[in-house]
Amino acid sequence: MNSDDFNSLLIGRFQPFHKGHLEVIKAIAGESDYITIGIGSAQYSHTFENPFTAGERHLMISRALKGEGIERYFLVPIIDINRYAVWVAHVASLVPPFKAVYSNNPLTKRLFQEAGYEVRASPLFNVEVYSGTEIRKRMLAGQEWRDLVPKAVAEVIDEIGGEVRIRDLMKGLL
Amino acid sequence: MNSDDFNSLLIGRFQPFHKGHLEVIKAIAGESDYITIGIGSAQYSHTFENPFTAGERHLMISRALKGEGIERYFLVPIIDINRYAVWVAHVASLVPPFKAVYSNNPLTKRLFQEAGYEVRASPLFNVEVYSGTEIRKRMLAGQEWRDLVPKAVAEVIDEIGGEVRIRDLMKGLL
Amino acid sequence: MNSDDFNSLLIGRFQPFHKGHLEVIKAIAGESDYITIGIGSAQYSHTFENPFTAGERHLMISRALKGEGIERYFLVPIIDINRYAVWVAHVASLVPPFKAVYSNNPLTKRLFQEAGYEVRASPLFNVEVYSGTEIRKRMLAGQEWRDLVPKAVAEVIDEIGGEVRIRDLMKGLL
Amino acid sequence: MNSDDFNSLLIGRFQPFHKGHLEVIKAIAGESDYITIGIGSAQYSHTFENPFTAGERHLMISRALKGEGIERYFLVPIIDINRYAVWVAHVASLVPPFKAVYSNNPLTKRLFQEAGYEVRASPLFNVEVYSGTEIRKRMLAGQEWRDLVPKAVAEVIDEIGGEVRIRDLMKGLL
Amino acid sequence: MNSDDFNSLLIGRFQPFHKGHLEVIKAIAGESDYITIGIGSAQYSHTFENPFTAGERHLMISRALKGEGIERYFLVPIIDINRYAVWVAHVASLVPPFKAVYSNNPLTKRLFQEAGYEVRASPLFNVEVYSGTEIRKRMLAGQEWRDLVPKAVAEVIDEIGGEVRIRDLMKGLL
Amino acid sequence: MNSDDFNSLLIGRFQPFHKGHLEVIKAIAGESDYITIGIGSAQYSHTFENPFTAGERHLMISRALKGEGIERYFLVPIIDINRYAVWVAHVASLVPPFKAVYSNNPLTKRLFQEAGYEVRASPLFNVEVYSGTEIRKRMLAGQEWRDLVPKAVAEVIDEIGGEVRIRDLMKGLL
Repeated sequence: MNSDDFNSLLIGRFQPFHKGHLEVIKAIAGESDYITIGIGSAQYSHTFENPFTAGERHLMISRALKGEGIERYFLVPIIDINRYAVWVAHVASLVPPFKAVYSNNPLTKRLFQEAGYEVRASPLFNVEVYSGTEIRKRMLAGQEWRDLVPKAVAEVIDEIGGEVRIRDLMKGLL
Repeated sequence: MNSDDFNSLLIGRFQPFHKGHLEVIKAIAGESDYITIGIGSAQYSHTFENPFTAGERHLMISRALKGEGIERYFLVPIIDINRYAVWVAHVASLVPPFKAVYSNNPLTKRLFQEAGYEVRASPLFNVEVYSGTEIRKRMLAGQEWRDLVPKAVAEVIDEIGGEVRIRDLMKGLL
Repeated sequence: MNSDDFNSLLIGRFQPFHKGHLEVIKAIAGESDYITIGIGSAQYSHTFENPFTAGERHLMISRALKGEGIERYFLVPIIDINRYAVWVAHVASLVPPFKAVYSNNPLTKRLFQEAGYEVRASPLFNVEVYSGTEIRKRMLAGQEWRDLVPKAVAEVIDEIGGEVRIRDLMKGLL
Repeated sequence: MNSDDFNSLLIGRFQPFHKGHLEVIKAIAGESDYITIGIGSAQYSHTFENPFTAGERHLMISRALKGEGIERYFLVPIIDINRYAVWVAHVASLVPPFKAVYSNNPLTKRLFQEAGYEVRASPLFNVEVYSGTEIRKRMLAGQEWRDLVPKAVAEVIDEIGGEVRIRDLMKGLL
Repeated sequence: MNSDDFNSLLIGRFQPFHKGHLEVIKAIAGESDYITIGIGSAQYSHTFENPFTAGERHLMISRALKGEGIERYFLVPIIDINRYAVWVAHVASLVPPFKAVYSNNPLTKRLFQEAGYEVRASPLFNVEVYSGTEIRKRMLAGQEWRDLVPKAVAEVIDEIGGEVRIRDLMKGLL
Repeated sequence: MNSDDFNSLLIGRFQPFHKGHLEVIKAIAGESDYITIGIGSAQYSHTFENPFTAGERHLMISRALKGEGIERYFLVPIIDINRYAVWVAHVASLVPPFKAVYSNNPLTKRLFQEAGYEVRASPLFNVEVYSGTEIRKRMLAGQEWRDLVPKAVAEVIDEIGGEVRIRDLMKGLL
């Protein structure tokens, strides 16, 4: 990355990283020199909403992108802070310089706009199915979920026992 | 990275990333499948001890490693927490799985040993000169510092106005 | 304010400051030498519940009170802490000394009573209409809200683009 | 307690400590040399969910156990942290060494298992009636609750005006 | 304050507010429509460096300014955060909008400059004598300090027993 | 403990618990029905100043007091908060009710006095030798330290490898 590169920022929770995320990154890659992928809610894990640690998500994403031959990206865990008035400054201090933000989240868009950044709509790919919530529900119910994530992600989830973790966490709560 | 890879962890503040750091990483790379490089004290910037943000350091390191053809690494900012009894768990949750830690810091070594990790001595390269403190002092004094850092790092520091920042921060305090 | 003055404390979120708040302050002013107005949840902004920053609310209130000729007050932002056992000590350290608290909130009343303060019921003025929630709903729906707030507050909200902010934040979430 | 003792850990909120808790402790005491009783959510008080401070709960439990002649225990307040990846390390740093954890909570069980501890199911005693929620509801409704807690606990609650506190906190909110 | 007013920001710790501070404010007042006075390190009190609470400092300043007939100001306590990359956003969210910052502190100047604000040098008035440190030392040593602060500030310090507090805090530590 | 008991509070860091601490507790025990012993700086460990975790200190103290037949005490870890204006409320929420505080620390005495508690001077026993700092220095230097602590404390330190920990932490830093 050089100073006149067009670097983009994309933030997600990636619980887990799925084929919809991958398609978004491929699409943005066509418009950017470098993409910074922020792993949001990095401090959370071991809940149904956020089962995987930031480190596990880091591994999922880097293996999946390697499988696709995507190399010009930065991967940065971002711990949530709920004071939205300082959130953009917080993010900007943790990631390499960027010129545009891709997001469909109204709060994210508004905050980056107020701070003077260019905000672009993130492309959408079959959001009902390619959805973290949908995948986690299927894991819990013992249904097929592997076709919704890149092959490399399914391997990581198997290595770390991800399905059993989600079921254990919800045991007796259903 | 696959589950039977030998992944190593190295943590530093990299204020800034210099040739000594680079030599350490090259040496460790020869013994590891993947290296996770933790950018410590990630929340700090704009002081003499920690002039550069985590994002700026991320950029320095990734450009320098690209220049060396090193590709099998993860780069992870790590915010300090001063409760040492939970520090290893904190780090472990933010980075991909690792099997050994390289460090010469007594506290770091002790904490990872208590937690059951293999700890290896980090190789040392001319530590009096290849030193962040030395480099920052030279920047402040207007002395030559560029030969102590990889060329890509000097470029990043120039792009972000790093020398002026350090001098501004210390103005009137010397 | 002198040491034998009767200083009162009133805490609200003021999202936004409306005519009901103003009437309460006028009524308390008749019973007090000075009123300290605590701007609660000061760390929050950019949500539907708390759209305005503490600084923006500070400006609304001071302009509205100036318009009414009210001068004997202190305006103090108060960041929430959710440990109620220390909350009164937290508030007391941030504001000038006070002798009574006006509140209708059961928790606030109980906490100040346990700490030995005099607690008085806050007067109520048409609380269904003069309500921050009602005003924010009207802004969102494009309905008339300006007659519920002092003229000076409407001006501040217009200057900072408050209506658009609320609509942006909720876009796609309705 | 000596180093070869079998020390157990039991964590609860104890809002308030009731006869079901007491039966659990008696049962665990038969299998352990020492029991560490962690008072969870120690930072909270003055809400319907958590009406009593950690200090008040400490007093309830120690008086109730004294009344039963139970002496081989440690009582430790534990402030919540919501980063589950470091929670076990947090707890382990605050309490004396322990070899097994008694719990029926899926998250607690999973986290201690991942950290390598033995986890045992906590015995259950009439959980519909011996329940903190049930007791707090009865206090609020002015119904009989004293037969659900040890006599010593009822005395503590009376000394600190616990019933009035719960009713005050919910005044106007029902 | 209207939207085209020229509002200035001045931040200090004011431990205590002295005649040098007052002169600075008078000078800035001549160049500004409104001055926002930020009470820094608002969370600290009861140390030699920071003996007075934010609330006590609020009272000192407002009484002193009233004595001078200065009315067009905002007084805002500001809790320190040591992440300098987000500090300007933190301050900006707590205070009414401002166009210029008065400061002689190198870090403050640099941070506001990076964020795009106009920074002006703060005028200086006999800084060896009109100094919080000097005043606190004199209080501790039982020497004359009252001529260094506005009369209204000396009254507040006497009302709250400020001299005795400072001596108590240092008892046995000298 | 009953509501008319005279309960005392004593706070220390106990790094480690030594014979001087024990003598203080014996002396206070003669004037109190119950003593609450607060383990201060509970969040720290693994430094030269604070080598032992709160849990390890809990174990040292309870075993030492058992060896002396002292039974009427509460042992409570207390995490530091550096906002002194709320510190007493913080402590009071974590411990059972108490009527007097024993302390020789000027800040502690002042804060509890301002909050209306009775403060008594803590008795002193050969403070040059019975000193945590002295004991830690001896451990580091390989000198005799066991005669400065109760026998039960020396046993705990040996079980947890305390001497090696202190030496490891300081390796290369001397």
